[in-house]
Amino acid sequence: MTYPAPPDAPPIAAEDYAQILAFYAAQVRLLDQGRADEFAEQFTEDGVFGQNVKPEPKRGRQEIADSMRRGMAVLAERGLTRRHWFGMVSAGALPDGAVRTEYYAMVYETPRGGTASVYLSTTAEDELVQRDGRWLVRSRHVTHDGT
Amino acid sequence: MTYPAPPDAPPIAAEDYAQILAFYAAQVRLLDQGRADEFAEQFTEDGVFGQNVKPEPKRGRQEIADSMRRGMAVLAERGLTRRHWFGMVSAGALPDGAVRTEYYAMVYETPRGGTASVYLSTTAEDELVQRDGRWLVRSRHVTHDGT
Amino acid sequence: MTYPAPPDAPPIAAEDYAQILAFYAAQVRLLDQGRADEFAEQFTEDGVFGQNVKPEPKRGRQEIADSMRRGMAVLAERGLTRRHWFGMVSAGALPDGAVRTEYYAMVYETPRGGTASVYLSTTAEDELVQRDGRWLVRSRHVTHDGT
Repeated sequence: MTYPAPPDAPPIAAEDYAQILAFYAAQVRLLDQGRADEFAEQFTEDGVFGQNVKPEPKRGRQEIADSMRRGMAVLAERGLTRRHWFGMVSAGALPDGAVRTEYYAMVYETPRGGTASVYLSTTAEDELVQRDGRWLVRSRHVTHDGT
Repeated sequence: MTYPAPPDAPPIAAEDYAQILAFYAAQVRLLDQGRADEFAEQFTEDGVFGQNVKPEPKRGRQEIADSMRRGMAVLAERGLTRRHWFGMVSAGALPDGAVRTEYYAMVYETPRGGTASVYLSTTAEDELVQRDGRWLVRSRHVTHDGT
Repeated sequence: MTYPAPPDAPPIAAEDYAQILAFYAAQVRLLDQGRADEFAEQFTEDGVFGQNVKPEPKRGRQEIADSMRRGMAVLAERGLTRRHWFGMVSAGALPDGAVRTEYYAMVYETPRGGTASVYLSTTAEDELVQRDGRWLVRSRHVTHDGT
């Protein structure tokens, strides 16, 4: 089968594509429920998580989980529920068997007793690998729109 | 194949996952077009539809359709177009062959002659069954964010 | 396999459905990055692109690309980043082997240094064909909500 992929990468199988959609669906739930350790375990041991609005990427599961816990504490104090939507996922094969994805990520938030609104629009790029039948994030880079 | 599922349920086939995405896509269209009877027929005869902001769930197709018609009449009077987006769908197999899904549902609205905005952010859980080659909702529970 | 399709069209294969999701994911990226010629090449040579808010549809790749370039110039001047999300995709087979899709398309925008917001909610209908293993848009009609 063929389907469109990032221009510089051959396409992946449709089944892998469906798996990756489901992987992201499970992952945002961990993120939005504040399950920091489980979220961090969806990265490889030496996974890298960078954002264009931060000077340095987080490196490894410990840093990723710690950073997320700090963020969740702030949200809890402010009574905010955030929802991450990953979508518009393009995927292509890398030479070493990993998969590179490009996708959009929107974040919505709802204050306690209040109404929902858009919080943030971003684009992201991942490298995903399969280990023991599970997908893991080897690297992620998020770019905030408007910056 | 394996892909991430709700933690307490084994994964479903990628083909079933794609079918369920398409099922939801068709369903929100019925919902937003106000096709109450066809929407209700996407539930089992004894389907249950609960929301955390309502004291009692709707039980059976008649109650589901009637409730939807009342809601649509209010929207029509106010000149509002609503769009439901179901996304971030996680799915796992239940012991009896049904599928349990968890997903996010956002609602957007546009007034006649006006501009679009976010109306509501929710999370939802369904139990889906296959009957005669069609997917049906056996139960749905929706939780509004911010409540 | 069977899965829900527009009521007057037989369903398509799950693999085709996954391919079409990926096709749209790649396409919105071309659109939002202002890659007008590549975007236009995702239509057939004689592709038609209509919107209910425009008196005439664009016909052929040249018109589609030119129209997009004019739109992008306006956005650039205003410092806006737009993100198109296509979702809730229903798909069915047409008698001539093409695929008809119905979907929702939301547009978000973020001004330079500002915060993201919803710009527009629309619904759309495409006819898609496969040529040399690639999907192409034969026709697209977009309807803006609230009009």
